[in-house]
Amino acid sequence: MGSLEALQDRFARGTAFVMRVRLEDKPDALGPVLAAVVKAGARTGEIQLAEHPAGAMVYDIQVFTTGDEQMAAARQAAAAVKGAEVLTVLDPAMETHRGGACETRSRTPISSNTDLRIVYTPGVARVCKAIQADPANAWEFTNICNRVAIATNGTAILGLGDIGVLAGLPVMEGKAAIFWEFARISAEPVLIDTHDPEEFITIMEKLAAGFGAIQIEDVAAPACFHITRELDRRLPIPVFHDDQHGTATIVLAGLLSALKKTGKNIERMRCAISGAGAAGTAIADMLHIAGIDDVVLADRAGILYRGRKENMNAEKVALAQRTNKDNIRGTLADAMAGRDLFIGVSQPNLVSQAMVASMTKAPIVFALANPVSEITVAEAYQAGAAVAADGRMMNNALAYPGIFRGALDSAAESITVDMMLAAAAALAGLVPQGQLMPKMMDPATHQAVARAVANAAQKP
Amino acid sequence: MGSLEALQDRFARGTAFVMRVRLEDKPDALGPVLAAVVKAGARTGEIQLAEHPAGAMVYDIQVFTTGDEQMAAARQAAAAVKGAEVLTVLDPAMETHRGGACETRSRTPISSNTDLRIVYTPGVARVCKAIQADPANAWEFTNICNRVAIATNGTAILGLGDIGVLAGLPVMEGKAAIFWEFARISAEPVLIDTHDPEEFITIMEKLAAGFGAIQIEDVAAPACFHITRELDRRLPIPVFHDDQHGTATIVLAGLLSALKKTGKNIERMRCAISGAGAAGTAIADMLHIAGIDDVVLADRAGILYRGRKENMNAEKVALAQRTNKDNIRGTLADAMAGRDLFIGVSQPNLVSQAMVASMTKAPIVFALANPVSEITVAEAYQAGAAVAADGRMMNNALAYPGIFRGALDSAAESITVDMMLAAAAALAGLVPQGQLMPKMMDPATHQAVARAVANAAQKP
Repeated sequence: MGSLEALQDRFARGTAFVMRVRLEDKPDALGPVLAAVVKAGARTGEIQLAEHPAGAMVYDIQVFTTGDEQMAAARQAAAAVKGAEVLTVLDPAMETHRGGACETRSRTPISSNTDLRIVYTPGVARVCKAIQADPANAWEFTNICNRVAIATNGTAILGLGDIGVLAGLPVMEGKAAIFWEFARISAEPVLIDTHDPEEFITIMEKLAAGFGAIQIEDVAAPACFHITRELDRRLPIPVFHDDQHGTATIVLAGLLSALKKTGKNIERMRCAISGAGAAGTAIADMLHIAGIDDVVLADRAGILYRGRKENMNAEKVALAQRTNKDNIRGTLADAMAGRDLFIGVSQPNLVSQAMVASMTKAPIVFALANPVSEITVAEAYQAGAAVAADGRMMNNALAYPGIFRGALDSAAESITVDMMLAAAAALAGLVPQGQLMPKMMDPATHQAVARAVANAAQKP
Repeated sequence: MGSLEALQDRFARGTAFVMRVRLEDKPDALGPVLAAVVKAGARTGEIQLAEHPAGAMVYDIQVFTTGDEQMAAARQAAAAVKGAEVLTVLDPAMETHRGGACETRSRTPISSNTDLRIVYTPGVARVCKAIQADPANAWEFTNICNRVAIATNGTAILGLGDIGVLAGLPVMEGKAAIFWEFARISAEPVLIDTHDPEEFITIMEKLAAGFGAIQIEDVAAPACFHITRELDRRLPIPVFHDDQHGTATIVLAGLLSALKKTGKNIERMRCAISGAGAAGTAIADMLHIAGIDDVVLADRAGILYRGRKENMNAEKVALAQRTNKDNIRGTLADAMAGRDLFIGVSQPNLVSQAMVASMTKAPIVFALANPVSEITVAEAYQAGAAVAADGRMMNNALAYPGIFRGALDSAAESITVDMMLAAAAALAGLVPQGQLMPKMMDPATHQAVARAVANAAQKP
């Protein structure tokens, strides 16, 4: 990791801005501005010359801050420097999303009337007739072999909650951008503006002919379980809920990697999970399949046990049946005491160092709440963790692009548990020495996941 | 128009193939193969050297045919030439649509973890919050400002009828390719697999947040009227049915151009339309708005008149009220007799030369049925037409890319009649000397339409 990345990591819980400053064209003009930013508590990163008008220099200065308030202070401090004028402050996230993060383009140039008559009438009629004669031809002669729906109802957008489909659209577009960049998959946001799970299912079912696979995204629990299961049952294409299946795959990959580092045995693991929503439920099931038979979950009402009445729903009643084998009760702290593995998919700052210290010696701690984790990695290590990681290190974008690539390449009808286990094993096998997870930016990572998933899909 | 284009035009009702032939590497090897193709009744177009293995030459020969049967004969004839081996025959339309005609890509590179944290979490959360705080921000910070849904139920795909959404997908993808190539609009096929117009409306309404405009495509009449009107009424974005509004715009553009050529006056025009579906209805209304008060339509049951019982529906009853001012009855031939303008949006070969001859002297004949028109342009001219055109000359792709570009650029809530009139006038104003319509492949054509439409949108 370069030093700039390291610096950005230090401030990753905050916000990086770009401040455009106009200075007098003097050799010593920049230094005082940088000093002022630092004095306001912020940090400076990259500095680029944006313009060079007569008698002046205009710089774009990257400013790492804890948030809007610190940025305002840094701006004020910079503006107070003699000869400096702050022209604007840009948020790179807003600028990157300006005009959208994805777009739909032609795959073929149209530069003559002949081209037009091939891509459209009369030529296209022959393609239509070929599909009418045999619907299987659609896989070869349309883009559905490579097209994924990213479908949401806007009810659980990031950690922001039920902010609606429109406010959630940048997340879907961001995911579409990731699909393209990491796996050359053509993914489209599908905003389904309904709070009724049955209506969501019906609508997605009626739209499904246009897609080769469906990613359910940021749909709140417990509706997400029924929606995902039911669509997967009804449709002949994979239906994958990233918050469940993607997160569970990444957790298993991280666990396999951590076990390799620590020499521990997966079957002896006793696990506590904070959060009993989409992610927690799927992780508990995945760990069970991977061989861990002692998993306890806790949510805001404490440990999930058979017979609990508080904060329950049908999904949690069923989950309590298949976890917590000793049916213990208590708080999250009680759940963690004496356990080897903690997985947080819940809320910021729920876990203290004392809670980590109460686990077995040298436990594994994955605190994955986003953007602020249950406990920081540094604090977890200080409290005795052998391996600690947060959501920045264990990012779903390591898994789902390759999983969908593999599923599409093998024309799979579902993404099975075997395919997810194969993805997790492939990821764990790619981890560089001294790291927990493989390299996100290396295309080989996503290609290896795709191959492993396609192979697992094709097994009888 | 180049000679190749002219040649292709001659065969545009048929099919162009590419035949790959392996020949001995001799100077006189190609001639006999070309002669054989011509003798089989087909024509050869471009010839490219595809490969040059030792001792042989492999050519790709473009072959214009009347269809599969003639191609089979040409292939057999070529294969019978000594020293020639036909390796394969490719259909360029199938090859162009292989893997799809459009795809969704990232608009931003993701080459570092910093990029990832901007396009996705945690950075994207700020974009979401900005839209949550003011939904109007979605227009600026997502792709909806440029995203059009191409929505179909598959009930009237080209002239092929109700072949279903999947078999219709290549048409939607082709249209998306055209949107991108001519107007840099990001258009997505939306396949809504239902025959219930109310369900179509409900589903499209629930999906609409993700789009800046909607193109209803290849939905059969009369359902298309209700669907388009109702969605336009309910949604704050334009809803445009190309088969209605696009065709009507093109017809008006062609008429304005023809009037200029002939020096005729639009208000004196008496018009007969063959076809009373989506296109015919919209054309009748558009001509009325443009100043023609005597329009008669005929469908398979003959002239549409007040009091007719055969082959009627609520839309046609209303249409009969506002057209056919003398309430005449009879056949299509009766409708055409003595009229100045014929517009065909119906079925192949319905119009004879005698029917054209029965019109006023030097009439205007637009025979737009696709891919085979009501009467050929050559036959119409022979029968005395002053101006004749078919669907290849008067192509909707001249209108809708610019219309949507203008509507999106002006953030219009509807595509109004004024905007369509402006588009038609802009098109008519761009016609080169000696032509009927402007140049499809000239970006200036689509830009001029977009400007005219945006200006018309912004008028109070």
